[in-house]
Amino acid sequence: MQENRSKRVILVGAGNVAWHLAPALTAAEHQVVAIYSRTPEQREALASRLPHATPLATPDFRSLDADLVLIAVPDAALEAVATQLQVNEGTLVAHTSGSQPLSLLGTVKGARAGVFYPLQTFSKTKPVDFKTIPILVEAQDEQTVAELELVANSISQQVHHVTSGSRKQLHLAAVFACNFTNHLLGITQELLQQAKLPADLLQPLIQETIAKALQQHPFNVQTGPAIRHDENVVQEHLRMLQPEPLYQELYLKLTRSIQAASGPHKKAEENNAG
Amino acid sequence: MQENRSKRVILVGAGNVAWHLAPALTAAEHQVVAIYSRTPEQREALASRLPHATPLATPDFRSLDADLVLIAVPDAALEAVATQLQVNEGTLVAHTSGSQPLSLLGTVKGARAGVFYPLQTFSKTKPVDFKTIPILVEAQDEQTVAELELVANSISQQVHHVTSGSRKQLHLAAVFACNFTNHLLGITQELLQQAKLPADLLQPLIQETIAKALQQHPFNVQTGPAIRHDENVVQEHLRMLQPEPLYQELYLKLTRSIQAASGPHKKAEENNAG
Repeated sequence: MQENRSKRVILVGAGNVAWHLAPALTAAEHQVVAIYSRTPEQREALASRLPHATPLATPDFRSLDADLVLIAVPDAALEAVATQLQVNEGTLVAHTSGSQPLSLLGTVKGARAGVFYPLQTFSKTKPVDFKTIPILVEAQDEQTVAELELVANSISQQVHHVTSGSRKQLHLAAVFACNFTNHLLGITQELLQQAKLPADLLQPLIQETIAKALQQHPFNVQTGPAIRHDENVVQEHLRMLQPEPLYQELYLKLTRSIQAASGPHKKAEENNAG
Repeated sequence: MQENRSKRVILVGAGNVAWHLAPALTAAEHQVVAIYSRTPEQREALASRLPHATPLATPDFRSLDADLVLIAVPDAALEAVATQLQVNEGTLVAHTSGSQPLSLLGTVKGARAGVFYPLQTFSKTKPVDFKTIPILVEAQDEQTVAELELVANSISQQVHHVTSGSRKQLHLAAVFACNFTNHLLGITQELLQQAKLPADLLQPLIQETIAKALQQHPFNVQTGPAIRHDENVVQEHLRMLQPEPLYQELYLKLTRSIQAASGPHKKAEENNAG
């Protein structure tokens, strides 16, 4: 393995994560030497964006003299893909998943296993600034952690060493913060459409709510009928949601959870919106 | 009633909404002539921010020759406050609540009733740009609507005339978009704390998620284990949430609601976070 800061990297996968990670590595003076993907169009499209990358059709990387193999494939495919890889003894092989453990890479013969998890959601069409994206690294020994940190620090200003257990909890937190929040915003859109109101009407209120929730503990700035224990409004909302039993149940559970989390005597900030 | 654009306004309430609304009206060359609040410190503090406003201790406004009375008090207090007001025949009296109907002001003798609802959450310590805040107006006759629109347009660039029914549905949508979203972000903070992870670790991901959800219909950009029908991850998350039965239930309901809303065959955008 080379000890200098510039690594020879192979990317496994050519989806949204690899699409942004590969140019970021290149810009940080690493060499992305190859892209392996089972989909010819994808591996070729990504390789063509990079100065020295070869699109690879097979997962045997032994002739490529790589320092680092980064696996950026969907979680569900990760184990199957890892099992097929063939690398030289001692090659550092890291996956980029938030939800999968380090131990999943135990099947890659001869490899030193690592995790290199960029904590962001990616779309091919939208540019990202990798400097602001936290990268979470993990490995079994300190030297491997240090190597991953070196690469992570070369593209991001926020690098954290966390265990698989913490990363799993972080992933659970991200499901609440992002997946579930997005769903609530989708329900919001449906409710606005039903009332023939413009889709962007709540945009300033949503932006302000999120900005506040990122500045202080959200439980301390909770507003609305639930925290005010305004049962009249709660019951009226439940009645309005009768045609949508799943949304009605969500409304009730979220209301009770707000009331339980904050306690009946906690003063919530006055507002005009909820 | 004066027909010119500058109105003589009395504000009822000196909380967060009045605190921002009064200077915005003054800046738009209306005259806020008085502030009525039952709390002396509050009415004096707000009156002292305005050039010509008198703090009032009684709800009899008949000697003040006002064009417009704006009631900005908590929803729960609105009906009781409205009943006590005494105004000259024909005075326009509007409340600023998102959840309360126009008809609630029927108890104000001789008044023409209106709604003047600024759709934003306010804190005294945080300045707001009223121009970007949607204002929803309602009244029983077109002339009164036009008067309210004139005032609303003088401080905001987004004025909508909506019925009490639509406004009620909007309020329900805002509960999902803001109150419930805030609660999910609070749960997120608790989960991060449990894992001793930094509170701001998910911030870039949250900001990106919200930005996407505001650009497209959130159901079309839904990501995560629920939409992928990744039952292994879902079951593992439910197991991790066993110590918090309310959060566990929320997780399950939100997951099933995501799956029902989007259908099992809908392609969700690949991501690396959820």
